[in-house]
Amino acid sequence: MQIAVLLFERLTALDAVGPYEVLAHLPGADVVFVGERRGPVRTEVGSLALTADATLAEVSNPDIVVVPGGPGQRAHMDGGPILDWLRTADAGSAWTTSVCTGSLLLAAAGLLTGRRATTHWLAHDQLAPLGAVPVAERVVTDGKYLTAAGVSAGLDMAFTLAGRLAGDTVAQCVQLAHEYDPQPPYRAGSPDTAPPAVLAAVRARRDLILNRP
Amino acid sequence: MQIAVLLFERLTALDAVGPYEVLAHLPGADVVFVGERRGPVRTEVGSLALTADATLAEVSNPDIVVVPGGPGQRAHMDGGPILDWLRTADAGSAWTTSVCTGSLLLAAAGLLTGRRATTHWLAHDQLAPLGAVPVAERVVTDGKYLTAAGVSAGLDMAFTLAGRLAGDTVAQCVQLAHEYDPQPPYRAGSPDTAPPAVLAAVRARRDLILNRP
Repeated sequence: MQIAVLLFERLTALDAVGPYEVLAHLPGADVVFVGERRGPVRTEVGSLALTADATLAEVSNPDIVVVPGGPGQRAHMDGGPILDWLRTADAGSAWTTSVCTGSLLLAAAGLLTGRRATTHWLAHDQLAPLGAVPVAERVVTDGKYLTAAGVSAGLDMAFTLAGRLAGDTVAQCVQLAHEYDPQPPYRAGSPDTAPPAVLAAVRARRDLILNRP
Repeated sequence: MQIAVLLFERLTALDAVGPYEVLAHLPGADVVFVGERRGPVRTEVGSLALTADATLAEVSNPDIVVVPGGPGQRAHMDGGPILDWLRTADAGSAWTTSVCTGSLLLAAAGLLTGRRATTHWLAHDQLAPLGAVPVAERVVTDGKYLTAAGVSAGLDMAFTLAGRLAGDTVAQCVQLAHEYDPQPPYRAGSPDTAPPAVLAAVRARRDLILNRP
């Protein structure tokens, strides 16, 4: 079961590493991080690089595709090798998944046309113009397409997928092994629960968060 | 505010990347991933490498220390450059933190003697022999020492620390920007909530999980 995690410059690290940490522990999982070139790929903030061990051309037929988001996503929205690879990889995949603004890449590749999908809450208005049907849920399943909301939602998406791939008991074993029993010290993780001042402050920084230069 | 995240071969990726993703977004944060050597460091499963951008010697006086866990931690428990660096870095730190079995490294370095601390639930019995006072909570604060339970608890630890460093409003803004509103599809993330069969299965794999060869 080959699981390809896409890397591109200025992705959000947790978008990729959250699902990796879950899916890599499933029986038979063979995870490979793929990029336009082999070698280190700098993530959003710049102070962390993840290593691409294979080029896009070397991984043309994965069973599962994981597409992270992050400000670097924008550079690929108008076409090019990443969108070409997504179409190729999706053609044979059993599951095609995304985290955060990774779903915008899937949509730009034409893979979410008419499909229910989600993305980072700040980017929800970008789904419909790309042909997808926006759904304000943390994890959205439509056929073989699993899309997650912003950043940390990739963990919940991955446990959902783990259950589909390996059954509830195995998924729960991975959850317990990772002690995934979240207890956030604040209740501000969604626009519905965040204090108004926090919501306003984050909305005001929308372009910086989504497109950080 | 220099934040040093320690890397060593066969660490658990999410232990390091979870806190990084939170702390790197705080005002004035300057995160650096440090290792015995510069370059790629393979994480637990082997299919992901994170890049160390500085050597231990190059980062001797960080403001904040983040120590991940993972099976590779054992190789450093009996002394050597990692424990030496932890003592040096801790001497001047404002906060010294750990995720999962990273606290065993702090304890082995003599930094948790008589202090309340936590670790992965499967490793709790290893804290007392190292001089720490084990506490079965997800995030434990004792003075400047913040220790987190297994893997995913690093996110909750980091948001706790974010509040101390930058105030509640900034921490909540980062939480909302990361959409950290966890909704695990299963309720199996702690030994208290996991179904008995899941608990038994994970306990039976204790050595594999903690010390994966």
